[in-house]
Amino acid sequence: MPESVTDLNADLGESFGAWTLGDDQSLMRIITSANVACGFHAGDPLTLRRACAMAAAAGVTIGAQVSYRDLAGFGRREMDVPADELEAELLYQIAALDGLARVEGSAVRYVKPHGALYHRVRKDRAQATALVEAIKAYDPSLPVLTLSSGYLAEIAAGAGLTVVAEAFADRGYAPDGSLVPRGRPGAMRTDPAEVAARAVRMMTEGVVESVEGSDVAVRARSLCIHGDTQGAVALATAVRAALEQAGVRLAAFA
Amino acid sequence: MPESVTDLNADLGESFGAWTLGDDQSLMRIITSANVACGFHAGDPLTLRRACAMAAAAGVTIGAQVSYRDLAGFGRREMDVPADELEAELLYQIAALDGLARVEGSAVRYVKPHGALYHRVRKDRAQATALVEAIKAYDPSLPVLTLSSGYLAEIAAGAGLTVVAEAFADRGYAPDGSLVPRGRPGAMRTDPAEVAARAVRMMTEGVVESVEGSDVAVRARSLCIHGDTQGAVALATAVRAALEQAGVRLAAFA
Amino acid sequence: MPESVTDLNADLGESFGAWTLGDDQSLMRIITSANVACGFHAGDPLTLRRACAMAAAAGVTIGAQVSYRDLAGFGRREMDVPADELEAELLYQIAALDGLARVEGSAVRYVKPHGALYHRVRKDRAQATALVEAIKAYDPSLPVLTLSSGYLAEIAAGAGLTVVAEAFADRGYAPDGSLVPRGRPGAMRTDPAEVAARAVRMMTEGVVESVEGSDVAVRARSLCIHGDTQGAVALATAVRAALEQAGVRLAAFA
Amino acid sequence: MPESVTDLNADLGESFGAWTLGDDQSLMRIITSANVACGFHAGDPLTLRRACAMAAAAGVTIGAQVSYRDLAGFGRREMDVPADELEAELLYQIAALDGLARVEGSAVRYVKPHGALYHRVRKDRAQATALVEAIKAYDPSLPVLTLSSGYLAEIAAGAGLTVVAEAFADRGYAPDGSLVPRGRPGAMRTDPAEVAARAVRMMTEGVVESVEGSDVAVRARSLCIHGDTQGAVALATAVRAALEQAGVRLAAFA
Repeated sequence: MPESVTDLNADLGESFGAWTLGDDQSLMRIITSANVACGFHAGDPLTLRRACAMAAAAGVTIGAQVSYRDLAGFGRREMDVPADELEAELLYQIAALDGLARVEGSAVRYVKPHGALYHRVRKDRAQATALVEAIKAYDPSLPVLTLSSGYLAEIAAGAGLTVVAEAFADRGYAPDGSLVPRGRPGAMRTDPAEVAARAVRMMTEGVVESVEGSDVAVRARSLCIHGDTQGAVALATAVRAALEQAGVRLAAFA
Repeated sequence: MPESVTDLNADLGESFGAWTLGDDQSLMRIITSANVACGFHAGDPLTLRRACAMAAAAGVTIGAQVSYRDLAGFGRREMDVPADELEAELLYQIAALDGLARVEGSAVRYVKPHGALYHRVRKDRAQATALVEAIKAYDPSLPVLTLSSGYLAEIAAGAGLTVVAEAFADRGYAPDGSLVPRGRPGAMRTDPAEVAARAVRMMTEGVVESVEGSDVAVRARSLCIHGDTQGAVALATAVRAALEQAGVRLAAFA
Repeated sequence: MPESVTDLNADLGESFGAWTLGDDQSLMRIITSANVACGFHAGDPLTLRRACAMAAAAGVTIGAQVSYRDLAGFGRREMDVPADELEAELLYQIAALDGLARVEGSAVRYVKPHGALYHRVRKDRAQATALVEAIKAYDPSLPVLTLSSGYLAEIAAGAGLTVVAEAFADRGYAPDGSLVPRGRPGAMRTDPAEVAARAVRMMTEGVVESVEGSDVAVRARSLCIHGDTQGAVALATAVRAALEQAGVRLAAFA
Repeated sequence: MPESVTDLNADLGESFGAWTLGDDQSLMRIITSANVACGFHAGDPLTLRRACAMAAAAGVTIGAQVSYRDLAGFGRREMDVPADELEAELLYQIAALDGLARVEGSAVRYVKPHGALYHRVRKDRAQATALVEAIKAYDPSLPVLTLSSGYLAEIAAGAGLTVVAEAFADRGYAPDGSLVPRGRPGAMRTDPAEVAARAVRMMTEGVVESVEGSDVAVRARSLCIHGDTQGAVALATAVRAALEQAGVRLAAFA
């Protein structure tokens, strides 16, 4: 049997000025890839610089977690941004974070859309194209981290970008492989032992049990760990330990 | 007699969303260096990208016009920003603009502080140091464009950065070589012919007539053209024509 | 024949800091109702205070032109704001402007949604309800100025608010009475004489010629004058003069 | 001996969107006056509305905690805002919060400057005057809560405003009655028992022991409780209990 390998990614750098969010220092010891905010939904420049320095010191790969310009909504509200504006906004964010990362001895090595943009680019062709064009213009060797289906994955692959699929061990899956929307029964799993076991099955068997009991195929090179919830560090620790015990090697994809 | 050479610099990219400011397209045909805003006092990403594209097409050198984070005040209000926050904010701005410039086939080739920061770093050692550290960390080969005196020029030179001095043909000078503060009599010159003549004397004789009638020595490698005032384009056109007629060669410094 | 009466409304107070937009001073001499921005899509507090002072001096009625929180997009991008957040944001804006207006001897006397919110509340029941709830909570005697059809008009009327319908003499109408979307042929009318004639027919005959040549019924107590376009003042002047000549009395509705 | 009475005030409503700060719910059961943020340094409209609703329900008096426009710096960075801009910004904030408070059955009953503005108006005549003019214009019956010395207290009193002095049981005092600057030895007291004892002496004897051991006279109608520090609720609880045990009556000043 071939060795299994996975990446663990989490959102970091999401504090802003006097407001802190998440435990960057603790998560940095568990994950292999850090989706660092870029200042548009969270992340003042000093927070971002420090997150990049921590990631560089911990050997964690840095990705640009790009977003709508929406501090008040934390990037969680869909916005009808025209494609040329959005493309320029995304370029601006990737470049800004890359500069901070380089100063700290690392660099932006992939791009992941945040929040409402993450969901919008699965179903909005124009916005998905704007993101793909921004990455192509900045550095076409940067992979994009996203769900395996939807416009973004399709357009990015068509444009020659590397698409890296991610899965969520702490989210419920429908029998068709889609995520159960937040707020519905079974959408969120919070028990560390259960989430860790799901992560192991995803990475060793390539399946997860759906909310209706059937097994669903999941193909993912990365597992997303939510960092802004209570108990995030405990959950992430449990997931990492279980994966290692099951012989899954942890390694960044980029 | 050795050939005289000067640079003409102006602020560009200072529109924001629905609000336009300045005539970037016209100025781009006159100047040799564009101080492009970086989004903190002005300049949404699409405006900045377009300004970079125009500069690249026109063969105009791009500089990062960095500022306090103050859209409501257009960067004209001094702020007590702690040095580590300011340094990170400046890095973020330089990197963001550099990314947009590179995508358009150019790059950031110098740094110029804007507005209240321009004046503050002449007299505030901590903020001047923050700016110097940001440039050193990002790219120590980038010159800083500023007045020839004050902490910024002193600390930048001490740190090994190239300091490029600029002068203002449309501002009044005191006999000691300092600028007459705005609002005082003689602070602003608006007659194109007079301003053009002052520019020529500055660049061919190295002097300007002070508000008290005496000649003051002015050593500058660049002349700053104000782009946001009414008649800015006419003034800049007159200055450029007079310099060329006087045999002064126009060339970017970076 | 009964006397005809109409209101002329226009957007004002849409400058922001160093950026100016529109000619508030000139428009104030033509209109009867000023939709003053509230700081979320445009309008720094000093601009808003001055707009209120001008309106009070000119005897022009003040309305709160409420918007999404989106300076970078001038409130023109639809946003998925949760209803409770939106309601609080709208209350905040109405109250802030009312305070500035009262200090200048007037008050907010009606509410008009701006830009993307204007269009969204016609088709989004939750956001329309949020606006109605905000007005009810702040002052249920405030009319809402909007198109005569759609969720906002329906829900506001159901809640006991006064709904004031407006029409657009410079916009093309489809045969079903809806506006021709911007960008389509015939969407915008810019000839002052033609726009003025359309305004007069709307107010004396209650009809406007559609883009297909048929007459469409238009019932409106107010005509909206666009203030941010080139030639806005000339257009508004022509409309007002033609209405007065046709015996239509100009009077604010609130 | 006459009955002693004091007010306990704390900063509230300082969350912003996804970022939470302070424990409004717990503090509301301890304090008598809530300095509610107004959106310029903290406080999205929904947070502010909820803080007002909680205060109204708890019988806690609401004050407008006005600030510079500086979310990224939490209002802690001094800014050179021109007086007319600052006055309009302060009016805007007071009015916005008053509207939210009224909708929840209460109202703004006093004004307290926040952070860098709090300190600036003690030594900057123009900014202090701007604050006084804003209060006078909005409602001259609103008291201003501040330190007993400095320009703000002086100019406010001269303009006929009520000035309410506050003291800090958890801050060190110099022998001349001024606060020991943060960062100096003895600046901050964190032991609940000691802070509670200092509060009782302030309110029953009118003195506090200075960092040099001498007693300093303190005349204050209100004690400020810091709500954003770890242990804030425990400290506030201890202070309130000690004051009540010492027979000091707790009552809002406004």
